[in-house]
Amino acid sequence: MNGVSTDTPLVGKLALIGTGLIGGSIARAARASGAVKGIVATARSAETRRRVVELGFADQVTETNAEAVKDADLVIVSIPVGASGTVAREIGPHLKPGAIVSDVGSVKASVVRDMAPFIPEGVHFIPAHPVAGTENSGPDSGFAELFVNRWCILTPVENGDEAATEKLKAFWEALGAKVQTMTPEHHDLVLAITSHLPHLIAYTIVGTANELGEVTESEVLNFSAGGFRDFTRIAASDPTMWRDVFLHNKDAVLEMLGTFNEDLAKLTRAIRRGDGEALFEHFTRTRAIRRGIVTIGQDSAAPDFGRKHAPLPGAPIARPYAMDED
Amino acid sequence: MNGVSTDTPLVGKLALIGTGLIGGSIARAARASGAVKGIVATARSAETRRRVVELGFADQVTETNAEAVKDADLVIVSIPVGASGTVAREIGPHLKPGAIVSDVGSVKASVVRDMAPFIPEGVHFIPAHPVAGTENSGPDSGFAELFVNRWCILTPVENGDEAATEKLKAFWEALGAKVQTMTPEHHDLVLAITSHLPHLIAYTIVGTANELGEVTESEVLNFSAGGFRDFTRIAASDPTMWRDVFLHNKDAVLEMLGTFNEDLAKLTRAIRRGDGEALFEHFTRTRAIRRGIVTIGQDSAAPDFGRKHAPLPGAPIARPYAMDED
Repeated sequence: MNGVSTDTPLVGKLALIGTGLIGGSIARAARASGAVKGIVATARSAETRRRVVELGFADQVTETNAEAVKDADLVIVSIPVGASGTVAREIGPHLKPGAIVSDVGSVKASVVRDMAPFIPEGVHFIPAHPVAGTENSGPDSGFAELFVNRWCILTPVENGDEAATEKLKAFWEALGAKVQTMTPEHHDLVLAITSHLPHLIAYTIVGTANELGEVTESEVLNFSAGGFRDFTRIAASDPTMWRDVFLHNKDAVLEMLGTFNEDLAKLTRAIRRGDGEALFEHFTRTRAIRRGIVTIGQDSAAPDFGRKHAPLPGAPIARPYAMDED
Repeated sequence: MNGVSTDTPLVGKLALIGTGLIGGSIARAARASGAVKGIVATARSAETRRRVVELGFADQVTETNAEAVKDADLVIVSIPVGASGTVAREIGPHLKPGAIVSDVGSVKASVVRDMAPFIPEGVHFIPAHPVAGTENSGPDSGFAELFVNRWCILTPVENGDEAATEKLKAFWEALGAKVQTMTPEHHDLVLAITSHLPHLIAYTIVGTANELGEVTESEVLNFSAGGFRDFTRIAASDPTMWRDVFLHNKDAVLEMLGTFNEDLAKLTRAIRRGDGEALFEHFTRTRAIRRGIVTIGQDSAAPDFGRKHAPLPGAPIARPYAMDED
């Protein structure tokens, strides 16, 4: 155990349904921060459950969701959003009165719609979305620092239990996150532009590059450092998770897509007409946004995301740059 | 001097016209690798020239392009491609017989068209494009390791001097690059998909996010870790350079854009119709491309580009992950 707090943990028993990148990171961070007394975890496949036992980031691994939530003070469902309703139906009858049920889904309105009907009176249902991740998935991919300095959005119901919301907020803060509250509908609109549309665009262009007759796949790979490779990271995200995101946040994604298409048409027209001034003006404006993100600490100021560079062939290491091998 | 080679340098006098990210990195790498005997550099603005003198990565800084290329064995023009013709006209009469003239432009057919007419008989004109960079620009932004393990594309003329091409190839290899040869037209098609279209898309979506009425700018910045922030890096690239790229590679960019738009329409239709199978199939296919790029060493295998994570609040450093502050 890496726990450092000697105070009473914030949460007694934490139940994690789903142990992929997010669930597995919550477990590691909850333990390392001393925020919970004990962790019980479960996963759909027997193989994953075996792996979780090996990795040891939970105190107990159960075979069923119903078993996992028994006596739990905080239940966090960390699965593709399309399965939220099914899981809520399974765990509903087994939840302890006074428990908090939350999730980590990238869509919130559909999660509320699908889960809320199965949460019994006396249990506090507070949907959540930690805006953090990597392109990896599965129980091996998580790590305790994933949520540090990232935002976690809570979408509590109006007139819900304030103490429960405060407790969930304190839990995420113990994991290093900053917490903000908004409605599920507003969340879905905000994430459509900051996350869902970027993923859709990345998935599209990587697919486009993969299908060209005139440019070979090895050319696409070799010369990807010109910009393309940045998109491939996002387009390597978990297919099941992202299928569900697009199916469950359809309206907001289509709305943002409409605006994006208009803007792309404008830039296309500027290229076609040779309107250098319009291009220059646009490119200057977008540069400022990067600075804003770096200033508030949501990305590194290091060039190229801080990607490492190998040293020059035969040269001594004599510069202040990171030079580990790629 | 960091030079380690005690052999005769590959190149005697290297003249650099333009000392931004690429020119400045060439200077630092050429010196560190011992590939050149001496470096003379110049830049359009007096302020940049002063800064280059301060930074000290050239042995001599001249006020004019004509002066810089005098007696140079290798001239590399590292400026926005729109200025290629003007610079070629200026330096043409001052080039030494037997010298090699090259460039680093992201477009090749237009550079050949604009520069070749001004290169005198007896001087070897070999256009080049090192596929490497960061979002930063200016003389301070360069570093010696920028080209290590990256590709440099040469587009020599048919029946050109083979020894000169070999020499330029050896120069780029001394800087750590891998070298491939192709026609200017094929280069422009390949780069349209691996670099120019990704930049256009990134510039577009960052602009879209910046103009939404329903989502505030601070929400866009705060929740950018959901994917959006990846696009802001590319959309922070030098506006003048990129204006020129789009104006000078119009046809190939518009062609790739056509294919991209068709693919985006297909995915949009799948979302609208709730066709989860089509989405899942597409997202699974694109995941493989990332693996290909990592396998050939064109990107890091580290999750999230190896972005650093701050430690948990109050937790001891007990994990193998990079944990420097952002």
